[in-house]
Amino acid sequence: MMLKPLADAASSRGRRAALDLLSRRHSGGGTRALARVLDGCRRLLSERGEANSLAIAAELMPRLVALDDEARLRFFRHLADDFGPDPQGVLLAAQRFAEQPDAERLIALTAASEPPRQELLRRLNRAPGGTAGILRLRRALLAALRTQPGLAAVEADFLHLLSSWFNPGFLQMQPIDWRASAELLERLIEHEAVHEIQGWGDLRRRLQPDRRCFAFFHPQLPGEPLIFVEVALLPEMPAAIAPLIDPASPPRPARDFKVATFYSISNCEPGLKGVSLGNFLIKRVAEHLQRELPQLRSFCTLSPIPGFAAWLARDDAPAPPRWAQRVAAARETLTAAGGAAALGKGFDPVQCDGALREAIELLATVYLAHEAPTPRGDAVAKFHLGNGARLERLNWAGDLSRKGLKQSLGLMVNYLYDLRHVEEQHERFVHGEVSASRRIKRLP
Amino acid sequence: MMLKPLADAASSRGRRAALDLLSRRHSGGGTRALARVLDGCRRLLSERGEANSLAIAAELMPRLVALDDEARLRFFRHLADDFGPDPQGVLLAAQRFAEQPDAERLIALTAASEPPRQELLRRLNRAPGGTAGILRLRRALLAALRTQPGLAAVEADFLHLLSSWFNPGFLQMQPIDWRASAELLERLIEHEAVHEIQGWGDLRRRLQPDRRCFAFFHPQLPGEPLIFVEVALLPEMPAAIAPLIDPASPPRPARDFKVATFYSISNCEPGLKGVSLGNFLIKRVAEHLQRELPQLRSFCTLSPIPGFAAWLARDDAPAPPRWAQRVAAARETLTAAGGAAALGKGFDPVQCDGALREAIELLATVYLAHEAPTPRGDAVAKFHLGNGARLERLNWAGDLSRKGLKQSLGLMVNYLYDLRHVEEQHERFVHGEVSASRRIKRLP
Amino acid sequence: MMLKPLADAASSRGRRAALDLLSRRHSGGGTRALARVLDGCRRLLSERGEANSLAIAAELMPRLVALDDEARLRFFRHLADDFGPDPQGVLLAAQRFAEQPDAERLIALTAASEPPRQELLRRLNRAPGGTAGILRLRRALLAALRTQPGLAAVEADFLHLLSSWFNPGFLQMQPIDWRASAELLERLIEHEAVHEIQGWGDLRRRLQPDRRCFAFFHPQLPGEPLIFVEVALLPEMPAAIAPLIDPASPPRPARDFKVATFYSISNCEPGLKGVSLGNFLIKRVAEHLQRELPQLRSFCTLSPIPGFAAWLARDDAPAPPRWAQRVAAARETLTAAGGAAALGKGFDPVQCDGALREAIELLATVYLAHEAPTPRGDAVAKFHLGNGARLERLNWAGDLSRKGLKQSLGLMVNYLYDLRHVEEQHERFVHGEVSASRRIKRLP
Amino acid sequence: MMLKPLADAASSRGRRAALDLLSRRHSGGGTRALARVLDGCRRLLSERGEANSLAIAAELMPRLVALDDEARLRFFRHLADDFGPDPQGVLLAAQRFAEQPDAERLIALTAASEPPRQELLRRLNRAPGGTAGILRLRRALLAALRTQPGLAAVEADFLHLLSSWFNPGFLQMQPIDWRASAELLERLIEHEAVHEIQGWGDLRRRLQPDRRCFAFFHPQLPGEPLIFVEVALLPEMPAAIAPLIDPASPPRPARDFKVATFYSISNCEPGLKGVSLGNFLIKRVAEHLQRELPQLRSFCTLSPIPGFAAWLARDDAPAPPRWAQRVAAARETLTAAGGAAALGKGFDPVQCDGALREAIELLATVYLAHEAPTPRGDAVAKFHLGNGARLERLNWAGDLSRKGLKQSLGLMVNYLYDLRHVEEQHERFVHGEVSASRRIKRLP
Repeated sequence: MMLKPLADAASSRGRRAALDLLSRRHSGGGTRALARVLDGCRRLLSERGEANSLAIAAELMPRLVALDDEARLRFFRHLADDFGPDPQGVLLAAQRFAEQPDAERLIALTAASEPPRQELLRRLNRAPGGTAGILRLRRALLAALRTQPGLAAVEADFLHLLSSWFNPGFLQMQPIDWRASAELLERLIEHEAVHEIQGWGDLRRRLQPDRRCFAFFHPQLPGEPLIFVEVALLPEMPAAIAPLIDPASPPRPARDFKVATFYSISNCEPGLKGVSLGNFLIKRVAEHLQRELPQLRSFCTLSPIPGFAAWLARDDAPAPPRWAQRVAAARETLTAAGGAAALGKGFDPVQCDGALREAIELLATVYLAHEAPTPRGDAVAKFHLGNGARLERLNWAGDLSRKGLKQSLGLMVNYLYDLRHVEEQHERFVHGEVSASRRIKRLP
Repeated sequence: MMLKPLADAASSRGRRAALDLLSRRHSGGGTRALARVLDGCRRLLSERGEANSLAIAAELMPRLVALDDEARLRFFRHLADDFGPDPQGVLLAAQRFAEQPDAERLIALTAASEPPRQELLRRLNRAPGGTAGILRLRRALLAALRTQPGLAAVEADFLHLLSSWFNPGFLQMQPIDWRASAELLERLIEHEAVHEIQGWGDLRRRLQPDRRCFAFFHPQLPGEPLIFVEVALLPEMPAAIAPLIDPASPPRPARDFKVATFYSISNCEPGLKGVSLGNFLIKRVAEHLQRELPQLRSFCTLSPIPGFAAWLARDDAPAPPRWAQRVAAARETLTAAGGAAALGKGFDPVQCDGALREAIELLATVYLAHEAPTPRGDAVAKFHLGNGARLERLNWAGDLSRKGLKQSLGLMVNYLYDLRHVEEQHERFVHGEVSASRRIKRLP
Repeated sequence: MMLKPLADAASSRGRRAALDLLSRRHSGGGTRALARVLDGCRRLLSERGEANSLAIAAELMPRLVALDDEARLRFFRHLADDFGPDPQGVLLAAQRFAEQPDAERLIALTAASEPPRQELLRRLNRAPGGTAGILRLRRALLAALRTQPGLAAVEADFLHLLSSWFNPGFLQMQPIDWRASAELLERLIEHEAVHEIQGWGDLRRRLQPDRRCFAFFHPQLPGEPLIFVEVALLPEMPAAIAPLIDPASPPRPARDFKVATFYSISNCEPGLKGVSLGNFLIKRVAEHLQRELPQLRSFCTLSPIPGFAAWLARDDAPAPPRWAQRVAAARETLTAAGGAAALGKGFDPVQCDGALREAIELLATVYLAHEAPTPRGDAVAKFHLGNGARLERLNWAGDLSRKGLKQSLGLMVNYLYDLRHVEEQHERFVHGEVSASRRIKRLP
Repeated sequence: MMLKPLADAASSRGRRAALDLLSRRHSGGGTRALARVLDGCRRLLSERGEANSLAIAAELMPRLVALDDEARLRFFRHLADDFGPDPQGVLLAAQRFAEQPDAERLIALTAASEPPRQELLRRLNRAPGGTAGILRLRRALLAALRTQPGLAAVEADFLHLLSSWFNPGFLQMQPIDWRASAELLERLIEHEAVHEIQGWGDLRRRLQPDRRCFAFFHPQLPGEPLIFVEVALLPEMPAAIAPLIDPASPPRPARDFKVATFYSISNCEPGLKGVSLGNFLIKRVAEHLQRELPQLRSFCTLSPIPGFAAWLARDDAPAPPRWAQRVAAARETLTAAGGAAALGKGFDPVQCDGALREAIELLATVYLAHEAPTPRGDAVAKFHLGNGARLERLNWAGDLSRKGLKQSLGLMVNYLYDLRHVEEQHERFVHGEVSASRRIKRLP
């Protein structure tokens, strides 16, 4: 009974291909093309355009996507310059509202201060494939922003709208297993960012009953996972990644499932950068698994410390006063062993002597437990601690892959998600305090 | 592979029942309940709440829906008073932006001027059933607004968000036929607002292959039509409603389909009042039918003139100068026949004498062709002409039902949707000019 | 990914309409039409036809369905005369097999004795809509059989094949509720044979959570229930039908569900007469409900005794010897009250005096407990007792509807399905013994 | 609304795993286990078992599947010896029928001659997973038959029932593309028997829009393809296989699709050996493609000649008289080149000299065009010619793979499916005549 859109909605490839095709048809002739696009934007925003906005947006979107790089950049500048609020108009409205803050004047103020490009984007979204087109534009905008800081307000409007539209209330969480379509599974292989998937055999193992995968989908982008998390169901909190992703490991029976471990989380849509998804996904998955498997006792991660080696090498972080001495000693041990830089090459945690290991663990604890809330902190630590998780355990020689050794000196961390405490732990983290297990607190 | 939410998403009744149940559990004790709700709102909006917002929203939403009428009204006042922007803060941001309108200051201004209750609503929407809860709140808010004009800015924020979320780019148009679920069809019977559906036999006839029905759905509210339109596929533009909705009429074969006539359009969700849906639905349906049935020559409506009798009775509309004389004569004929009020009772267009008929048709033409763009204009005329349709034909004795006689003196109108002209005709209408067929222009 | 057949498989109406259309196209000219059909049948059965049987069957089936009544009857006679086994051939094969019963000779015997019309039907079934067409033919054949006993062997072949094809291993049991398609629900209204469904409001009540409905479907006939059973979930075994089917009765909460009562079972497909479906459906439903609702303590029916009044009126059944006296006394009481025939008209069980009631109950017990295994037995009793159920309780004034009074003198029966005992009770019934509760055994 | 069976029906793996699990639970103790199974079979077939057959079959099936090899073989012998028809009973029934061939006696005869094990299998099929269990039994039976010819009649009964149940009227043809589930696609990789699929990249290419794949499914075995055919859509009839299965070849646009070429057909279910599926699949696919792509001009195969090298080496086939001389000359040329056996090793068709090539082509033509209807004929040729296809073209150096060179000396054949002629060509083939193109007829 569902109406099929022309470009088969069941197929993300189909959808993208259709957009590509349309945009190719309209490409070329940057300046003239841009003029037509700007003209279309004005028409779409005009009173006249309202009655016909579906048709105008449907015509405009492929032209927009087809702009060449240079024309697109100029388009973004026009968005910044011509589709923002009028400073004098806003000032007047703000003055009138400050004089007498009633409903009428507030409505006028809100109307005056919202950049018209927001309404433009909302109308563009009415086109078939509109949401996909807007995500594509934002990818280009994020790239442009690096050299064009003046586009920041335009980017803020994109982010504002996308955050509202990709609100978790509108997202669907779906478990993904081996029965999923090959087209969808291929996207997991493509986007896994933490522990690369080595082909279909590897993926197959990661979708057996003791390994789970969950993704968020948006109804407007069926078949396209926005973000996915991989979970291992284990008898205990794991200390190393290799056994978890070993394609040859035999699946465990359900009676052994005691700990759910999030061992990888990857975004698939760069156009959604900055839109909060991972936090919500982890919590929805935890709730879902707790309902399905009441025998689960805890939820944790097995995570890398990707910024650790670089932080060690910078050697400029202030140590917390009461440990200053021990940190200094550890730094010395490290220097004696050739320095942080030397460790990057050929470091073997398994053969490492006890003193050096102790020094590195101490420094890693400082890096995680004290630096995380600062701008120097580790991105992964910031993410999980900011979600309200607790720093639970450091795992020596947890990741002996090249990348693991190079970035994290082979260390891995477990962050513990205890849903009863995330709110309070998150707040502490916002105020600069890292929640940690006794073991961690004792460690240094 | 799709995750089933706890309250079965396939069932709108289930969803509503779950919300009712939850809210009953939390009802009572207005003041204390309100205090808890406000506390929850502040927590949800706080930094602390961010990490836990799904859980907070899930707990808060049923409490909110459960507030008794008086507490809910006070809640709305708190939304107006405590969750708006800070006038001095906005003024300062507007001044700084007016001094130097750069990206940074614009971002600060936008942040300062957006009422925090918008973010509150976005976070509430994260709860399961959040969107449904927000629609329910808005229904109550619209009712409250009648006596509490100070809530207008709160209402503007609801409308702003809902317009963004129920953007046609996010809506799914679905044809509805006799294979649809009884639960869904029951909602059509309940909400048909133009030509009442007299039970399942009547509905069944309206879903035969020569009668179509299409609705918009939102992915978050599966099974709940937001708005639906009924279409008759006919050999020619119809002049009377009775044959179209006669349950005993034999279905026509597809080779006779020449004109698609929209004969009824009804909203199902009062919480979406003011969100533009009908215009988009009609155009999407027209495009869909044109693709499915290339033999269709035109798209029109068969519509009542629900404000005509009341307008006649008011007798205070200024006639367009060049017809002033004819209008005056028609008014006289009318008065001679006992006046507009008398016509309401027992008027029989079929027995009506020629002079009176001519007078009424003249006045109806004036009402439609000249009054539509004014505040006195007919709501249905405003809708279709505002969508860019053309006033095509007046049909004497087109609707002999009680309601039809009472409101429209039995008259019906065809509005013609010519997709090539809607944009231009809409613009003309915005400027006060009604597009009409030659026949209409000639009439008076 | 599923291939859509040309006539939309989702729609049983569509399917039937397509067949009707095709057959209309081919109808008329009985003799010539029959000649073409017979020719097609021979071609389809021939070696030559094998390579092309899909195409031949697709062409032949609509012609067959389109035969007029007289031609169809002649077609059946040809099936009987020309498409049976060769008596001499079978005899020879049987002799050879009796001489030396080895595999080869058995294969030859089986081949010789199977009527070729069985293979003809299997090949006809290859056509799109073949199964539906064969069911339609059998309906006509069953009608013809009444006057043409010579067709019995043809009918036996139809029954043999349909029993194999509609094997419960190939049937899908589906729960049906208010979310089912209106097209499907309409078929329930049409086919309910025990307690007529009084329109959509009545049906709606019968599909609330404390009333269930389950049906068997065949994959080849999607959307067409073959048989359905209605179940009431109740706190105790019910004694009267009226409260169960009262559209105004409030639904009970799940915590009250203790007894599942089958209160109606109806076939929808007369072409499947004689194919065992009801027995399997009841048992599959019982297992399903027991799994879904472990709190259920027992499964029973609330059934009419449709043959009781007629049996009473015949007055020729031999009483079991040890009760002969009491039965004779009861018969006398009955005669004194005007006789069985008089009771049919205006009998009011509620006002009935005690002696008469006792007499009727005694006779009903005899009818059920002693006559059921005999050819004089009640059809409903035969069905449930033959399924292995137990005669549990007689309910005076259980059905005060006109039909209930006329056929059953207002009596209803509970048959109890205890899955642990059905096998043994069924066997006893086959040997002429009715399993009954103590209460029943004590009664007379 | 569909009832989920306990072992998830959506997953063939789940289903097989459940059966494995159940059977492991029951395995061991061959003789005792067999005794229980035979007891269960007798109970299931008995009158007593009828009322409870679902439960008995559900208990019996896993025990049956769990029998060890030796016990299973004894079980088959019991099927042969104890569950066949009674020779004297059949003889009597046959005599009575021969005396007076009326309906009643025919029914008695049919009942007497059908082996009771057929009814046993029909009742076993009522169990959940019954059909899958019966297929598994037949796989074992086919293996046993090689050494136990006395089981032929049992095997004939299995084949008879499976042919009726897997009647094409009950099979669903489904297109399979990259959107299919990975679980399903994995089965294609596993079962492709003609041109091996080299992993997921290769498979992906074979599912692009210019390569199609279609399979038959049975509703009782969802997700398990029974047989699948791969099709290439090409601008002309192909002469070599390599370009068709080259994973790196760019997909062609739809406007180039002129010829649909069946280049591989593989069975997935050995338990269905002998049940005609391939013939029906090819014809359903041809009809489906003709409807979808009216621009298709013809349907052909690109096939190996797997028996050619072996036939050449045997050197004992009589040449058709009028070519005897040329065949003898060709044989001599072949002998001069070292003989057929030598060709098998390192033969390079590309470097082959003209006289040898001519000799081989002549002999291949004889093999195909004259030997195909004989017991010496090529299996692939028998299949396509038996389906009514025409021998169209011989392609020198069409398959340079090891297997292609070894079996077919690198030759490939196109068989042409012209749906208008298959019936007549099939009949000719049955009478020993091969339909061939003029080119082929001219060739030798």
